[in-house]
Amino acid sequence: MKIAVLPGDGIGPEVVREALKVLEVVEKKTGKTFEKVFGHIGGDAIDRFGEPLPEETKKICLEADAIFLGSVGGPKWDDLPPEKRPEIGGLLALRKMLNLYANIRPIKVYRSLVHVSPLKEKVIGSGVDLVTVRELSYGVYYGQPRGLDEEKGFDTMIYDRKTVERIARTAFEIAKNRRKKVTSVDKANVLYSSMLWRKVVNEVAREYPDVELTHMYVDNAAMQLILKPSQFDVILTTNMFGDILSDESAALPGSLGLLPSASFGDKNLYEPAGGSAPDIAGKNIANPIAQILSLAMMLEHSFGMVEEARKIERAVELVIEEGYRTRDIAEDPEKAVSTSQMGDLICKKLEEIW
Amino acid sequence: MKIAVLPGDGIGPEVVREALKVLEVVEKKTGKTFEKVFGHIGGDAIDRFGEPLPEETKKICLEADAIFLGSVGGPKWDDLPPEKRPEIGGLLALRKMLNLYANIRPIKVYRSLVHVSPLKEKVIGSGVDLVTVRELSYGVYYGQPRGLDEEKGFDTMIYDRKTVERIARTAFEIAKNRRKKVTSVDKANVLYSSMLWRKVVNEVAREYPDVELTHMYVDNAAMQLILKPSQFDVILTTNMFGDILSDESAALPGSLGLLPSASFGDKNLYEPAGGSAPDIAGKNIANPIAQILSLAMMLEHSFGMVEEARKIERAVELVIEEGYRTRDIAEDPEKAVSTSQMGDLICKKLEEIW
Ligand SMILES: [Mg+2]
Ligand SMILES: [Mg+2]
Repeated sequence: MKIAVLPGDGIGPEVVREALKVLEVVEKKTGKTFEKVFGHIGGDAIDRFGEPLPEETKKICLEADAIFLGSVGGPKWDDLPPEKRPEIGGLLALRKMLNLYANIRPIKVYRSLVHVSPLKEKVIGSGVDLVTVRELSYGVYYGQPRGLDEEKGFDTMIYDRKTVERIARTAFEIAKNRRKKVTSVDKANVLYSSMLWRKVVNEVAREYPDVELTHMYVDNAAMQLILKPSQFDVILTTNMFGDILSDESAALPGSLGLLPSASFGDKNLYEPAGGSAPDIAGKNIANPIAQILSLAMMLEHSFGMVEEARKIERAVELVIEEGYRTRDIAEDPEKAVSTSQMGDLICKKLEEIW
Repeated sequence: MKIAVLPGDGIGPEVVREALKVLEVVEKKTGKTFEKVFGHIGGDAIDRFGEPLPEETKKICLEADAIFLGSVGGPKWDDLPPEKRPEIGGLLALRKMLNLYANIRPIKVYRSLVHVSPLKEKVIGSGVDLVTVRELSYGVYYGQPRGLDEEKGFDTMIYDRKTVERIARTAFEIAKNRRKKVTSVDKANVLYSSMLWRKVVNEVAREYPDVELTHMYVDNAAMQLILKPSQFDVILTTNMFGDILSDESAALPGSLGLLPSASFGDKNLYEPAGGSAPDIAGKNIANPIAQILSLAMMLEHSFGMVEEARKIERAVELVIEEGYRTRDIAEDPEKAVSTSQMGDLICKKLEEIW
């Protein structure tokens, strides 16, 4: 079991460090060991090797079973030409190399963190726990032909059967291990690409008789995410609708520091949904939870360690319930714990509940 | 000044009646008179003439200076074939006949109605007062070519210079009478149609040096509408993005009964953003405010009566501030006022403040 670890820039190194502490607990408790191969990406790689995604890093990633990334980017490298910058030359190039086809973004609004959510307590209800499964390889962001001249600009919004089948199976597989509800979001009352999408999703659904499938139009979904977010379990959607809805959902918990993500491809990539937050980097105040939950996703989806993933998620939840907060989620910033304290608390709790 | 009045189905007739009371106050105070020509549409027209958009109604609309619509549809007509139903055969056919190119959806979260919004008071801040200007005639909902077979489905997302110029001017003109801020929402980092959109919007902006223009990506806009909705004044966007964002925005006030809309075309159409609400029709409990604010929009945009429109909006706001509530926005439904009481209260307040 080999993991490529790419801490990157900004808060990346400090939150990755905490996640690796959690991994150590898992290793100790299970007796399993992971080989961690560290690589450089983004500004960190530019400073050392003059390029944001060096050959060595590519090699490490292609030889690993999973890639565990911190974050990239910062003002120091913003004046470089776009394709030399940490984001485009580093992270986007890595994502492209991995042929990613699915982006998985779980969103949880913890009952004990209702105060940081922009939504009222009564709207959150018994809690929000949803995951967006976004198709990542096709749709209007990649469709051909496309063009631009002085008078017009156009793109092609397109889906084919095999692309929809693959992402639908991803969503149904994830739903099987959750509350067994898939909401497929499209605009099939208007768009031909959505009509194909809906037809194929209906076909795939027959392979999963235990999972309940409903369809929702994207405009209504954008509204329902605010009016009644607790109705959603797994949201299955296209590249563009997923881009919009996963960012809308990301606003619900009130801090990006809580949100993990996974992307599936030739190799799977695990990274927090937030950015490198250069303004708070190196101060030991960032929230490591997004990175720790990304680790849990890696254990579940790349190494089949579902139980262990659930234990990590439970430890995070218990530590939050006990009132420990990093600054981004604290009602009183004076009482906030540091990055490393939060990591230690989660490790300790994980040992306790194992 | 001739108005085609189409009360339609469900709560349509009762809320239109209250709006016309308000118009009477305006006539009395200004000395101006409006010729109101009543027409039938939707289920109401089906029951009388066997079709949802009779020739007589079309004629009335084409001869009027503006069209004032209630709402259409209800379970009674749901078993008809789609093109004979109130929605498709009536409202959509009317919209098509009018060659509509802009949909204007103002959203206000009143300070005194913060309890019905799904957002927390601190998020609403000093209040939300935004308007979405959605391009309605082009984009991926109408682009050619499009197609569907067993293996794939595709649509064309397209904009041309003259379509973007027209909708951009509409947005800047509206912003001139408001807080003078336009946020143009696109996805110009990925989509060629959005690159043209952004270029042309920038060109039109030069004609409006007093209006501040900013650009925002659609995924970020979906997030910002929840995190900090008070930052928006006028949101200018494409047909599809406007479909999504205007419905997302519509969730913010907590009741559809508060939301007016206007659509510009060969003739302008004014109607509430909500539906015919057949479950509460005929009970004198519907909220007439959406219809009354649609009247204000008609006075402003079709008859240049900006002052009079502001007065109606102010009267509505004052009545709400004084604590009067229809059932949809009442904390205690026992204390709710009826449809006609709310109409009378707004008329009385309007006379007072004139
Ligand atoms: Mg996005
Ligand atoms: Mg819509």
